[in-house]
Amino acid sequence: MDLLKPSPANSSPLTPLGLLERAATVYGDCTSIIYNKTTYTWSQTNRRCLQLASSLKSMGIQRGDVVSVLSPNLPAMYELHFAVPMSGAILNAINTRLDARTFSVILHHSESKLIFCFWWKKINPKRGFCRSLVLEAISLFPSEVKPPVLILIMDDDVHPIATVGDFNLDLTYERLVSIGDPDFKWVRPNSEWDPMVLNCTSGTTSAPKGAVNLCPVYLWTLSMFHSNGWSFPWGMAAVGGINICLRKFDAASVHSLIHQHNVTHMCGAPIVLIMLANNPSKEPLPNPVKILTSGASPPSPVLFQIESLGFMVSHGYGLTETNGCVLSCAWKHEWNKFPATERAKLKARQGTRTIGTTKVDVLDPESGASVECDGSSVGEIVLRGASIFLGYFKDPVSTARSLKEDGWFYTGDLGVMHPDGYIEIKDRSKDVIISGGENISSVEVETVLYSHQAINEAAVVARPDEFWGETPCAFVSLKLGIVRPSENDIIEFCRSRLPHYMVPKTIVFQESLPKTSTGKIKKFELKNEAKKLGFRY
Amino acid sequence: MDLLKPSPANSSPLTPLGLLERAATVYGDCTSIIYNKTTYTWSQTNRRCLQLASSLKSMGIQRGDVVSVLSPNLPAMYELHFAVPMSGAILNAINTRLDARTFSVILHHSESKLIFCFWWKKINPKRGFCRSLVLEAISLFPSEVKPPVLILIMDDDVHPIATVGDFNLDLTYERLVSIGDPDFKWVRPNSEWDPMVLNCTSGTTSAPKGAVNLCPVYLWTLSMFHSNGWSFPWGMAAVGGINICLRKFDAASVHSLIHQHNVTHMCGAPIVLIMLANNPSKEPLPNPVKILTSGASPPSPVLFQIESLGFMVSHGYGLTETNGCVLSCAWKHEWNKFPATERAKLKARQGTRTIGTTKVDVLDPESGASVECDGSSVGEIVLRGASIFLGYFKDPVSTARSLKEDGWFYTGDLGVMHPDGYIEIKDRSKDVIISGGENISSVEVETVLYSHQAINEAAVVARPDEFWGETPCAFVSLKLGIVRPSENDIIEFCRSRLPHYMVPKTIVFQESLPKTSTGKIKKFELKNEAKKLGFRY
Repeated sequence: MDLLKPSPANSSPLTPLGLLERAATVYGDCTSIIYNKTTYTWSQTNRRCLQLASSLKSMGIQRGDVVSVLSPNLPAMYELHFAVPMSGAILNAINTRLDARTFSVILHHSESKLIFCFWWKKINPKRGFCRSLVLEAISLFPSEVKPPVLILIMDDDVHPIATVGDFNLDLTYERLVSIGDPDFKWVRPNSEWDPMVLNCTSGTTSAPKGAVNLCPVYLWTLSMFHSNGWSFPWGMAAVGGINICLRKFDAASVHSLIHQHNVTHMCGAPIVLIMLANNPSKEPLPNPVKILTSGASPPSPVLFQIESLGFMVSHGYGLTETNGCVLSCAWKHEWNKFPATERAKLKARQGTRTIGTTKVDVLDPESGASVECDGSSVGEIVLRGASIFLGYFKDPVSTARSLKEDGWFYTGDLGVMHPDGYIEIKDRSKDVIISGGENISSVEVETVLYSHQAINEAAVVARPDEFWGETPCAFVSLKLGIVRPSENDIIEFCRSRLPHYMVPKTIVFQESLPKTSTGKIKKFELKNEAKKLGFRY
Repeated sequence: MDLLKPSPANSSPLTPLGLLERAATVYGDCTSIIYNKTTYTWSQTNRRCLQLASSLKSMGIQRGDVVSVLSPNLPAMYELHFAVPMSGAILNAINTRLDARTFSVILHHSESKLIFCFWWKKINPKRGFCRSLVLEAISLFPSEVKPPVLILIMDDDVHPIATVGDFNLDLTYERLVSIGDPDFKWVRPNSEWDPMVLNCTSGTTSAPKGAVNLCPVYLWTLSMFHSNGWSFPWGMAAVGGINICLRKFDAASVHSLIHQHNVTHMCGAPIVLIMLANNPSKEPLPNPVKILTSGASPPSPVLFQIESLGFMVSHGYGLTETNGCVLSCAWKHEWNKFPATERAKLKARQGTRTIGTTKVDVLDPESGASVECDGSSVGEIVLRGASIFLGYFKDPVSTARSLKEDGWFYTGDLGVMHPDGYIEIKDRSKDVIISGGENISSVEVETVLYSHQAINEAAVVARPDEFWGETPCAFVSLKLGIVRPSENDIIEFCRSRLPHYMVPKTIVFQESLPKTSTGKIKKFELKNEAKKLGFRY
C-alpha cells in the first residue's frame, strides 16, 4: 500500500469557492440574492464574482494579500465573500459598528492592500458612519504607511453626488465588476491551509485580535462580517438557496420580510430571538422558520416564547476561531414528549460535535484529563477539526496558548459534559466568579434572572468582597410597562432558586446593558463598573 | 500570514469513521440495523464495532494490514465497514459471486491477513457458495504462502453444526465481538491518504484489478461489496438512519420490505429498476421512495415505468475508483414542466459534479483540450477531487495511465458536455464501434432498442465487417408473453429512429444476456460471441 501516493487528481484541496460555479450550473436560473428591488440569479452571481475577482487581479492583488470590506448585508457584501478569495486574496470583513481608531488599527495591522467600503451616495449625517469612519481611520495611519486603495460600494436607492472627500469616485464597486473578465480562471488554494479569511473576534472581553433543504430562503439577520456570517455565504451556494439581504436588523422588517419572501431559514444570537419575541408587531408565522442561534445560551423563557410564534430553534456553538458551528444541540425525537420547560432546558445546551468536527472534550483545568460525564464537573471545552483556525495573526503567544502541543484548541469556555455526551457551557473562563472558594457560573445565575418576569436583560459579574473574595453582582434592565421590583425582590427571587452562595449580593438597575456590535453584553465594562462599586463589606 | 502553520488541532484528517461515535451520541436509542428479527440501535452498533476493532487489534492486525470480507448484506457486513478500518486495517469487501480462482487471486494479491466469511451453519449444498468457495480458494494458494486466518460469520436463523472442513469453529464473528473492549480507542488515520478500503473493480471489460433527510430508512438492495455500497454505510451513520439488510435481491421481497418498514431510500443499478418495474407483484408505493441509480444510463422507458409506481429516481455516476457518486443529475425545478419522455431523457444524463468533487471535464482524445459544450462532441470524462482513489494496488502502469501528470483522473468513459454543463456518457471507450470511420456509441443504439416494446435487455457490440471494418451487432432478450419480433422487425424499428450507419446489421436473440455479479451486462463476452459470428459480408 505504501507505493500508492497522493497525486494531483486525488489531492485537490477542498474549498467552498467551487460551490458557486456548481450553483451556476445546477441552479443557474434560480434566484440567488434579493435586496429591495434588486434580484440576481446564481448564473449572474457567479459571473459577477468572476468579473470582480479578475478586476482585483488586474489591479495587482496577489495571492495572500488582505482585502478588507466594511459593509452592511448588501448583495456586494455577499459577492465579496466569493470574489476576494477567488482572486487569491484574503477577505477581512470588518464590523461596521467599530470606532475609527479600532478600524484604523485593524486596517494597518492586517496590512490591507484594498478596502471596499459602503458609501451613501447622498450624505446622510446620521447614517454616514462609513464615510466619516473611513476618512478618520485613514487619517490615523502612521505617516510612513501607504494607505490602502479605497473602493466604494454605492447604495442603490439614492442619486450619486459629485465628490466625496478627496477620493476618486470613478473607482466604484460596480465599475470594477463591469470591467472584469467573466472567463477569469479563479485562483484555487494551494493547500487546505491557505488562508481564505481573516477575522477579528468580537471582543467581549478584550481589544480585537485577528483571528440542506432544497431551495431554502435565507434571511440575512446575521451580519456577514460576524465570523463571515457563520460560513453561511458559502453554504447557501452549496444548496442554491435564495439570500434575502437586510441592511440592518429590526424586528418589524424581519417579520414583514418573512411573510413577503416565505423565508425558511435564518440565524442570530439569542438577542435576536429576544427582539423578535418582544416586538409588538409579532404574529404567528404562516410557515415554520428554522432559526439557528449561537453565541450564548438562549435563556429558556426566550426559547419558549419564540417557539410559540412558530420559529423552530436549533442551538449551536462556534467561535470566530472555528469558522461556524462546531457543536450543535442535535435534537432527538424522544425529547418531544417532555414538557416545554424541560425541552427548553435540553435545547439550551450547546450539544455535540457537528459531522465536520473531529473531536470535542471538556478537560479538567488542573489535571488536563477529561471531566466526568456527570453534567456538573466543570472544565474547559477543547476542540479538534479541520475547520479550526490557523492561529492569531501576528500573535504567536496567543496562538500557542490556544493551539496547544497536545493537539487541542482551547476555547476558553467552561462547560460540563452531560451523561448523554452533550456539552453545556457554564461560562467563559474569564467570567467565573470565585466566592469563598466556590466557583460560580455567571451564566447559571443569569438564567435564573431571565426567568423573572420583569427582567429584560441580565449580566452577572464578580464584585470584590472583603470577606468572600468575590460575590456575584447582577446588572439588569427591566421590561417596559411593568411594576419595578426592588433590589431585595430580585435577591429573594434568586434565593428561592439558587444555592445561597450563588445569589447576587448586589443588584444594579440600568436602562439597558452595554453591548458589543454583535449583540453580546460587554461583561468587561460591567466588571469595571462592579470594581468601581468598591469592596462589599 | 506565512507564520501561521498547520497544527494538530486544525489538521485532523477527515474520516467517515467518526460518524459512528457521533451517531451513538445523537441517535443512540434509534434503530441502526434491521435484519429479519434482529435489530440494533446506534449505541449497540458503535459498541459492537469498537469491540470488534479491539479484537482485531488483539489478534495482531496492524495499521495497513488487509482484512477481506466475503458476505452478503448482513448486519455483520455493515459493522465490518467500520470495525475493520477502526482497527487501522484496510477493508477489502469481495464480491461473493466470483469464482474460487478469482477469489484466491484476490486474497493472495491483497496479502490479506484475515478473512471474514459468511458461513451457513446448516450446510446447504445449493446455497453453500461461500463454504466451497473459501475451501477451494485457499487450496489454490501457492504452497509457500501462509493462508490467512478465517473467521466465520454465522447465519442467524439455523442451528450450529459441529465442524466445517478443517476450520476451528470457535473463532466466530460473534465471539470476536463479545470478547472485545467497548472502550477501545479506535485507530485514526495519520493522513487523508491513509488507505481505508481496497476494492476490486467489477470487471465488465477485463480481469479484476485492485482498485440528508432526517431518519431515512435505507433498504440495502445494493451489495455492500459493490464499491463499499457506494459509501452509504458511512453516510447512514452521518444521518442516523435505519439500515434494512437484505441478503439477496429479489423484486418481491423488496416490494414487501418497502411496505413493512416504510423504506424511504435505496440504491441500485438500472437492472434493479428494470426488475422492480417488471415484477408481477408490483403495486404503487404507499409513500415515495427515493432511489439512486448509477453504473449505466437508465433507459428512458424504464425510468418512465418505475416513476409511475412512485419511485423518485436520482441518477448519479461513479466508479470504483471514485468511492461513490462524483456526478449527479441534480434536478432542476423547471424541468418538471416538460413531458415525461423529455424528463426521462434529461434524467438519463450523468449530470454535474457533486459538492464534494473539485472538477470534471470532457477532454478531446486528440488535442487534450475541453470539448465544445454542444452535447455532441465526444471526449473522455476526467475528474479531480478528494474522493478519487490513490491508485491501482501493485499496478503502477495502470495507475500512471489513469492518474496522469496533468492532474486528471481519466475514467475511460466517453461522453459529451451539454450546453447546460451537464455531462452525458456515450460509451466506455473500449465499447465504441467504429464503422466506416464513424464512431458509433453502443449506448445510443441500446437506448433505441430499449424503447421497443418487446425487448427486455439489449447490448450492442462491434462485429467485424469486410466492408465497414465494424458494424453494430445487437444482442437482445425478449419480454415474456409478447409476440416475438423478427430480426428484420427490429432493424426496421431502429432504421426509423437512428442514422443509417448506427442501425444494427445483426440481431442475436438470447434468453437472457450474460451479466456480471453487479448486474452489468458482460460486453466483453458478447464481443467475443460477435467475433465468432465471423466477418459480415
